[in-house]
Parts: sequence; C-alpha cells; structure tokens
Amino acid sequence: MRERGKPMNETIQTQLAHRSIRKFKQKAISQDIINTLVDVAQHTSTSNFRQNYSIISITDETKKQQIATICDQNYVAESGHLFIVVLDQYRNYTIARDNGVDTSVLETTDRFLAASMDCALLTQNMVVAAESLGLGAVILGSILNDSKAIIEMLELPEYTFPILGLAIGYPDQEPQLKPRLPQEFVHFENTYTKFEDINNELSEYNETVQTYYDLRNSNQRVDSFSNQMSTQMNMRHPKRMQNLERLHEQGLLKK
Amino acid sequence: MRERGKPMNETIQTQLAHRSIRKFKQKAISQDIINTLVDVAQHTSTSNFRQNYSIISITDETKKQQIATICDQNYVAESGHLFIVVLDQYRNYTIARDNGVDTSVLETTDRFLAASMDCALLTQNMVVAAESLGLGAVILGSILNDSKAIIEMLELPEYTFPILGLAIGYPDQEPQLKPRLPQEFVHFENTYTKFEDINNELSEYNETVQTYYDLRNSNQRVDSFSNQMSTQMNMRHPKRMQNLERLHEQGLLKK
Repeated sequence: MRERGKPMNETIQTQLAHRSIRKFKQKAISQDIINTLVDVAQHTSTSNFRQNYSIISITDETKKQQIATICDQNYVAESGHLFIVVLDQYRNYTIARDNGVDTSVLETTDRFLAASMDCALLTQNMVVAAESLGLGAVILGSILNDSKAIIEMLELPEYTFPILGLAIGYPDQEPQLKPRLPQEFVHFENTYTKFEDINNELSEYNETVQTYYDLRNSNQRVDSFSNQMSTQMNMRHPKRMQNLERLHEQGLLKK
Repeated sequence: MRERGKPMNETIQTQLAHRSIRKFKQKAISQDIINTLVDVAQHTSTSNFRQNYSIISITDETKKQQIATICDQNYVAESGHLFIVVLDQYRNYTIARDNGVDTSVLETTDRFLAASMDCALLTQNMVVAAESLGLGAVILGSILNDSKAIIEMLELPEYTFPILGLAIGYPDQEPQLKPRLPQEFVHFENTYTKFEDINNELSEYNETVQTYYDLRNSNQRVDSFSNQMSTQMNMRHPKRMQNLERLHEQGLLKK
C-alpha cells in the first residue's frame, strides 16, 4: 500500500509492477510495435551524441534457438521477439577512419564504459515501453555465456560487443513481485554507508526473500538473500571468465 | 508525424519527447518524489538478483558544487536534485566475506559488466519516472572526469565505482529534439550491417544534424554528425584516460 502524497501515474505504476517474464504466449508481435520500441531506444540519452549501439532483431529461428542454447534458457526461443543490443563503436570508427582520423581512443576503458552505458540505458527504455503496451520482457545477460559464439553468429566487427539480450512477448505467467532490499541499504546521503554486521542487519529482509516463490524453480521457495549472494561467489561459468579476452579481441577495454 | 497504426500511450509519448535538460527552475523537489524515484530504481531488473548498486543523494551544497566543477557543468550545481549511481559489489562482498566465502570473482570483467548494466538500467528507469512527473533530467557521464575525487568525496570502498550521475529538476528550457540516426543505420536483422561508404550514406542525416540548434553552445548550429564523431576521436581528457587504473584500484575489472 502506497502512502498518501506519493506521486503516481500510469508510467510509474508500470515501472513499480515490473517482473521479468519468462513464459510467453504464442502470439506474434507486430512490426509497428518493434519499430516503436526501436524508436524509443533511439530517443534515449547517449554519451556525447555518439549513439554507440546497434540493435539486432533475431528473426531467424535457427539463430534464435542457438541463442536460447547459449543463454541456457528455453523461453528465449519461445519469446515473441528477441533483440540483441550491441555495443557499437564500429560505425563511428569507420566515419573517423574514412576521414583520416586516428581512432585509437576507442580502445580505452573510458570509451567502453560510455558506450556500455548507452546500451543499457536504451535497453531499459525499451523494457518500459514494452511493459506500457502490456508486453512482458526479460533482459538477458546470459548471452555472455558464450560471447564468441554470438560475435561469430551476428558477424560483429571490431569495436563491437554483444552486451545484452532482450526478449519480449505477451506474458503467459504472473510472477510474484520480487522483494527488493529495503531502501536504507541502497540509498545514502552524501557519503557511502557501510553496515557493521550486514547479515544480521539483513535478517528481516532475508526472511522476506524466503517467502518469495520463484516460478523458475518449480515454485520452490528461494534461499535467503545473504545465502544466495554467498553461493553466487562460486558461480564461475568458464567462458564468462574469459570475457575480458573476448573484449580485447574486439579491440575494446585495452587500456 | 507518426503513421497510423503505431502504438502510442502516455509513457511512450514521454519517452519519445526526451531531451536532456540542462537548465532548471529554482524549485525544490519533494522528498516524496525522491523516494518514488529510488523506489522505481529498485524495481529495475538486476543481474541474478544481485542489486549491485547504491544511490547517493548529494544534498551537501559544497559537495554538489565540487561535483559540478568535476563535471565542468554549472547546471549540475543548480539542479533540483543530484544522484550519484554507484556500481556496488561491496555490499555483497561483505555478506559473503562474513559468511567465510572466497570473493575473488568480484574482480572479474564479467561481474563488473553485469553490475555496470544494473546501474545504467536503473538510471534510465529513474529518468523515465522523473520525466513522467514533468521533471527534466540529464545523465552525467562527466563524473568520470575525476573518478578518484568522487571516490574520495563519497568515501567509496573497494568493489565500488561511481558510474553515472543523474541531475533532475523542474525544466527551465525547452531544447529542440536532437535528430537521431535513421533507423536503418542502427537496427539490423540477424547479422550486423556494415556500410560501404558511411560518410556518403550519412549525407542526408549529416545535413539534418546541422539544422539542430544546441542550447549548450549559445544557440549555435552544430557540426555534422560525421564531423562531430571524427573530432571526438581526439578528445582525450587526461584523467578519464586513467579510469582503468582507478577501476583496478577499486578491485574491479582486474581479470
């Protein structure tokens, strides 16, 4: 229940109701919707007007299935539409190269960071737009389980990198809202706040998390936040541990 | 003019009308709005439920002024509210450390990427929410002009990094909509598209860009997109070129 006085409108209502959707109806998404989502993506802020992204729609069923396999998530293949958001400094590289300009700055961490921000910002803008139209969405960091395969499949040139996937579709499930950390753990004033005895201070939240039923794991209750975060420290997907090498091969993050 | 059949609602209307706002009215933003924006941020998708961010509100006028100086943009100091979005793996580090778990995976590029995506996704969610309430917003990559100063000022511990700023306020300007690249240059199907003679193919867009009046530069017309992107290759802010070292010092992006 929201208190009186809190600002509210349809947009914010949609945002606060966000759940990642991982089961979709078999219903095609119209080209008008696809175009509108890309239009929204393009109206997102980009660093220094660089527009350092490209969006690849995966309409080829074989590629879609291959990406689902890489993501290790079947619902990716069954989604209404699959976008791969590509960090793209190649387009501006060719512009500058053809103008005879030295482009080595593209190899820096600074440029990579700015471009990766561009990509994530527009992805979230697409999520909000999709959800405002009654669609469900799930952002796929899992395309990085095999970035090399994605790079080859999509024929991505130097100075590009597949950074996020986005699957959308008409939702065929209604997951519970996932309980987020209490605001005092994530919103500070003027300086960063450290917690003296974090697991103790999180005990109430840890209990709340355990009341959440995760549709992904056959409706089983989930572990506490503290335990999940601790267990995750041992998650080392072998190919994901090589993503710095993959980025270097693409000419990125080199200095 | 939008064609018939294109989906439209208030949310998408707001998103398509996005302009970065760099001049704000002297009007305070209510605490209810701040809390709602943070609430929206918290409802954004995060990688593996990690919630790898913290949001720091800068209410101290001295710090706000110092950040404006770092950003080299006076309007930062004059904004209604200033957030710094911090990539934060420290909180989960302490959870796991106190549980006796090895946390060295936090030093990997893979974990850094996922956490940085978390941060940008929620920043865009805040932008959309703010704009839906009639506020203006500008995302500040320029805090990275001196990441070390920001890290010290906000007392950011290891495994954290100040990744984006977000200034919001009641808009006191109405900038022109900035013309984006035509969709065929950024939206592809199944494979990446290279352009044979990019500057020639961009000629119409380059002309369009030159009709845009940039309020930042005393209403002067701007250079073509091709020329802007070429000129930017020589922008090498000295401290920004050291951001990889700053990240390493924070324990991030090390392997």
